[in-house]
Amino acid sequence: MTTTKDLVLAVDLGGTNTAFGLVDRSGQCLARGTMATDSRFPVAQFFQRLHENSQALLAGLKGGQALAGIGIGAPNANPFTGTIEHPPNLQWDFVDVRAELARYGPFPVAVTNDANAVALGEMLFGAAKGMRDFIAITLGTGLGSGIVVNGELVYGSDGLAGEMGHLTVTPRSDRECGCGRVGCLETYASATGIVRTALELMSIRRAPSVLGRIPSAELTSRLIFEAAQSQDALAREAFEVTGRVLGAKLADMVLLNRPQAIILFGGLAEAGNLIFDPTRRAMDASLPADCRGKVPLLPSALDGSEAAILGAAATIWTELRGKVPPAGG
Amino acid sequence: MTTTKDLVLAVDLGGTNTAFGLVDRSGQCLARGTMATDSRFPVAQFFQRLHENSQALLAGLKGGQALAGIGIGAPNANPFTGTIEHPPNLQWDFVDVRAELARYGPFPVAVTNDANAVALGEMLFGAAKGMRDFIAITLGTGLGSGIVVNGELVYGSDGLAGEMGHLTVTPRSDRECGCGRVGCLETYASATGIVRTALELMSIRRAPSVLGRIPSAELTSRLIFEAAQSQDALAREAFEVTGRVLGAKLADMVLLNRPQAIILFGGLAEAGNLIFDPTRRAMDASLPADCRGKVPLLPSALDGSEAAILGAAATIWTELRGKVPPAGG
Repeated sequence: MTTTKDLVLAVDLGGTNTAFGLVDRSGQCLARGTMATDSRFPVAQFFQRLHENSQALLAGLKGGQALAGIGIGAPNANPFTGTIEHPPNLQWDFVDVRAELARYGPFPVAVTNDANAVALGEMLFGAAKGMRDFIAITLGTGLGSGIVVNGELVYGSDGLAGEMGHLTVTPRSDRECGCGRVGCLETYASATGIVRTALELMSIRRAPSVLGRIPSAELTSRLIFEAAQSQDALAREAFEVTGRVLGAKLADMVLLNRPQAIILFGGLAEAGNLIFDPTRRAMDASLPADCRGKVPLLPSALDGSEAAILGAAATIWTELRGKVPPAGG
Repeated sequence: MTTTKDLVLAVDLGGTNTAFGLVDRSGQCLARGTMATDSRFPVAQFFQRLHENSQALLAGLKGGQALAGIGIGAPNANPFTGTIEHPPNLQWDFVDVRAELARYGPFPVAVTNDANAVALGEMLFGAAKGMRDFIAITLGTGLGSGIVVNGELVYGSDGLAGEMGHLTVTPRSDRECGCGRVGCLETYASATGIVRTALELMSIRRAPSVLGRIPSAELTSRLIFEAAQSQDALAREAFEVTGRVLGAKLADMVLLNRPQAIILFGGLAEAGNLIFDPTRRAMDASLPADCRGKVPLLPSALDGSEAAILGAAATIWTELRGKVPPAGG
């Protein structure tokens, strides 16, 4: 029995729960688990528990595999510094992930945010296999983007590039964004954005909607999706508006980056044609004639339940293959 | 006397004239000349004359240097295919530059458009020396952009990336663009754009302007610049509007790419603070607070009269150093 370094530990650090798994080079997740994140307690305790849980997971595997490295996806993660800074849903204000993990062994560690992780996951294991120029967009609570150019993720000079969620929509909008400005793309193209769009449409349209029976604070993108599937006109229009706003910005991205594909990921993307069709139409309508219809808009090819783990795994596998600059640490 | 391959032939193929020069690795232009482009005649004649002229130039140098390669900047050039397609100001509809030059020797040839050439010129010899993430913008008749990410030019999947000139301005505008759409950035942020802005302002403002004495078809960015320097309020406002529209789009680019700097090049950029100040203000005003003031807006550091030649030289030197993917040919 030989020891092969053919696995990475991949971690999706979330506000409530943390999922982790052991993933091989081909993107197979051989074992996985979850634990409460519990950010009430000191961060060192979190990494202690993560270490114990992953050791147990590893011990459960046959064949004596050893870890080649650790990939961690987290909100507000900075891939250059290996830190998590002011994460919105955690009680830790600053986490030096690399320093915390160094207590448990000299493993290579890659730290990334969720949209970048998804982009690398799609490139290694998903819908962007073999592509060198593409964009992955996560439509969750907000809008995240991972942009790949010449086969490498765009990190920018400080590791924080790819903030498509804060591009300004056209025409101008007054919707307040968490970043302190108004009219950012994610105030429309996200799970929370489509809720705001449905509310705005209810202020405009006279025809009744099943959504009118739900208190506005309880409205979710899931409920709008279900209403749209039941042919509720207002819910369908909410998807149309979302796609129109998103598609216009994707046209800008086509002009800037000429990607081979744009991949939509996350809860809102799971609405399928309801969101893909109007987005595709708006993207083409916003492009010069010679660019239309050339950039496919694809759904993610990562299994939704494992996508975050596969993304974190792809990040460390990519770094181990030397495709990402060592980036500061 | 030894033969060293320490020079490239750099060519700036323009609608009326073609400039060419012999440039060493450090960006020194050792000799240069110009010739009429004369696109009335077959393109083979152009390359024959270019060959003769460059041989004469080379013969005039002491030391028996030989060419390491040829770099050509041209409108509508595709770096992947080495071709020029439907150039707006030339009577040749399609030019296979690599095939034409192959008649004269087995030189490596790099073909590029002007904005990409300027970006590589700034990176090798100018304001972006040592930078790995920056954007160069040419404010000429139109608006061109060369975007560098991770030390490499963004060509996209087909060689045609970087079309910032056709991003849509906010708020929406009806200005017709040469691309067939309305409201593209270059209908504002370019030498022709500021003329249109001055005309629009003359339709809005009541106060007289010295520009009102000039037939609109004769108005140029140079005349607006001179009027602004003489404190003409309308001419100054035209620069303000141009900067406001450009700065808002540069903010998007900061969010997307986190560049180390943005470089402005070309006739309009030579207006100095008249264009840099409002652009910088608008860029900062359009960014989230934590991004403001971080990305310097720089003037080009290439000598204007040699910039196009240095850009073409940088393109082939970059390719010879293996920093640019061989790109199809």
